Amino acid sequence: MGSGSPRYECLALADALKWLDACPHAVGSEPVPLEQAFGRVLHAPLAFAADRPDRDLALADGYLVRAEDTLGASSYNPLRLALVPEGTVLRAGCACACHAGQTVPPGANAVLPPEAGEVAGGALDVCDVVARGAGIGRKGQGARCGDMAVPAGRRLGGPQIALAASMGLTDLSVWRRPAVAVVLAGAKPPATEALGAALAGLIARDGGKARQGAATVGALAAAAPADLVLLVGRSGRGGDDDAGDAVAAAGGRLDHHGVALAPGGSVGLGWLGSAPLLLLPGDPISALVSYEVLAGRLLRRLAGRPADWPYPVRRRALSRKIVSPVGLSEWVPVTCDRTEAAPLALAPADGVIGYARADGYLIVPAGLEGHSAEEIVDVVMLGEASSQERE
Amino acid sequence: MGSGSPRYECLALADALKWLDACPHAVGSEPVPLEQAFGRVLHAPLAFAADRPDRDLALADGYLVRAEDTLGASSYNPLRLALVPEGTVLRAGCACACHAGQTVPPGANAVLPPEAGEVAGGALDVCDVVARGAGIGRKGQGARCGDMAVPAGRRLGGPQIALAASMGLTDLSVWRRPAVAVVLAGAKPPATEALGAALAGLIARDGGKARQGAATVGALAAAAPADLVLLVGRSGRGGDDDAGDAVAAAGGRLDHHGVALAPGGSVGLGWLGSAPLLLLPGDPISALVSYEVLAGRLLRRLAGRPADWPYPVRRRALSRKIVSPVGLSEWVPVTCDRTEAAPLALAPADGVIGYARADGYLIVPAGLEGHSAEEIVDVVMLGEASSQERE
Repeated sequence: MGSGSPRYECLALADALKWLDACPHAVGSEPVPLEQAFGRVLHAPLAFAADRPDRDLALADGYLVRAEDTLGASSYNPLRLALVPEGTVLRAGCACACHAGQTVPPGANAVLPPEAGEVAGGALDVCDVVARGAGIGRKGQGARCGDMAVPAGRRLGGPQIALAASMGLTDLSVWRRPAVAVVLAGAKPPATEALGAALAGLIARDGGKARQGAATVGALAAAAPADLVLLVGRSGRGGDDDAGDAVAAAGGRLDHHGVALAPGGSVGLGWLGSAPLLLLPGDPISALVSYEVLAGRLLRRLAGRPADWPYPVRRRALSRKIVSPVGLSEWVPVTCDRTEAAPLALAPADGVIGYARADGYLIVPAGLEGHSAEEIVDVVMLGEASSQERE
Repeated sequence: MGSGSPRYECLALADALKWLDACPHAVGSEPVPLEQAFGRVLHAPLAFAADRPDRDLALADGYLVRAEDTLGASSYNPLRLALVPEGTVLRAGCACACHAGQTVPPGANAVLPPEAGEVAGGALDVCDVVARGAGIGRKGQGARCGDMAVPAGRRLGGPQIALAASMGLTDLSVWRRPAVAVVLAGAKPPATEALGAALAGLIARDGGKARQGAATVGALAAAAPADLVLLVGRSGRGGDDDAGDAVAAAGGRLDHHGVALAPGGSVGLGWLGSAPLLLLPGDPISALVSYEVLAGRLLRRLAGRPADWPYPVRRRALSRKIVSPVGLSEWVPVTCDRTEAAPLALAPADGVIGYARADGYLIVPAGLEGHSAEEIVDVVMLGEASSQERE
């Protein structure tokens, strides 16, 4: 173990998560045009700069009237009003043809539906009563100037973008995508490329931008500047496991090396300059599990997103018991039906087969010796949410 | 109404969904390099082309032995075995230093951990018993040649990509991304651009590739070839609502025009050549709601994904009653806490304000007059799933 690394230890998973959650996470904001804002996270709250609507509006086609002028009208007793042109003050006894969206002139207080009026020359025969305010959108009825339109931290979807456009905005201030430098030091091609691709996909999902360096620990110094550095491979205790030394040589440091997590025990937590640096194991399953359990959590915070897994959690009964050593947080892939979760036997040294088949996973807490059969556990479901799943 | 459009009708939402689900959805497959496969949908099942592992392997560093040679060994009674070089048949009384991943030679049937043996000259003093099979991964233990590795239809994530790489694959056959031609005929800039951006984001989320045409119904003929055509705007019954005529002029047809859905009632369902064509209303909230309720469902099927909304559904008690006309499927945005859903009052003609603020939505079924206060309803939650949500 080189001078830059602390003794290989066994940090509890809970303490590793605390370390991650204590990392500063101010990557700042950037403006993006509305056309590129879908899926980004709003940085500052968006407030209405004017009342919505900004004036009284007719909400439907018809006739602007004074409601009191229609009192007593029916098809047996039509009341005649004088039709006046658009844009003039509406005096008692008058009406004005209108279309949806038209400004309501002073005096008018209701829109008579087209079928309740009949035009006869320059006059309108009103055949029904209309209530005061009917068919009219009042100034500020939707929102008042200064009201919150979209809160900070909201992922921007279709409605928020359409709303911003209707407010006359052409761009929005969103969280900058954290730059994640990925240095793949462990595996050999084509496994390296595939692991890089898998990590790049996960990084994009979590709101970051992956920048893949040369596949050597020597590339570490060139990884800065980044908002997060992932050094993948050579993290263990073997003779060629020089990742800890490489961190020191690049001027970084590891606060911790070794987490009581399986798979993923050789994870390291540290710094390269002001950027958090995570040492991840190089074998595919350990790399992917430690990304999911640890690195992804930090990245989502850096990207202004909720830290928790972007997966739904479901309660399931275990189909058989799981034995796990006390002191170790053990990650266990499972297949699920609607009531049960069946732990997948991980083929030793080939766990990625089980992970690729899994519907979800659970983590046996460090304080437990496992779970008994029939026990109800929280399963983190892989894959997207679906409205098909109702619980 | 032009000759190309059937009479403006009121198709039940359930029948509109049936029409969508009956559309052919064979957009076919394409190969993608592993580096670009994250998030894509596997087209054909992937099977193992060889046993995993393809030979007996040592799973850990240590010494390959015959387990029966260690019977009776302890630190008080070390048993001496002759150390032989790697790669030779292991005869009785012999041991061979090994590293994880090394092929197990004939004769050997266990790996003795390093701490259970001590090298003395050309010999190994064995200080512990080891069980037959310990530390050895048997040929085919992880998977047999021909076993399913990843089923068709699976969204490819990190583990599947890493597994494919470990099988020596460099690309995978995935569902082609459906090309969606979006013709924005209704709104004026900048609302058009924003609506286009919002729809493009939704289309990408649902696995499609948006191609935005000129903002005129005349652009419709140029929309082909596409896998799906969305003609947005001018879908209503007003004087300038010529979308139905434009479909006919471009050689297409509408099977239905008008769905008993609010907002979104002026939706049309039809064809442009062999591509399904949806007429969507032009005002932002109606366009977005009809995309979510109708167009997105069809697109997800075209893209090989589950048709259901990619949102989780939660059960909540209504904080107040909702009144809705019988015969109409009414879409209602709500805000939610952990137990209740509060319907948002949609400002007339400015519903996008409420949609932008909503945590989710529900659809009042056409057969109901609404829901009473306290009634338990299924709320489709907007935004991503989160493991924070446990129910």
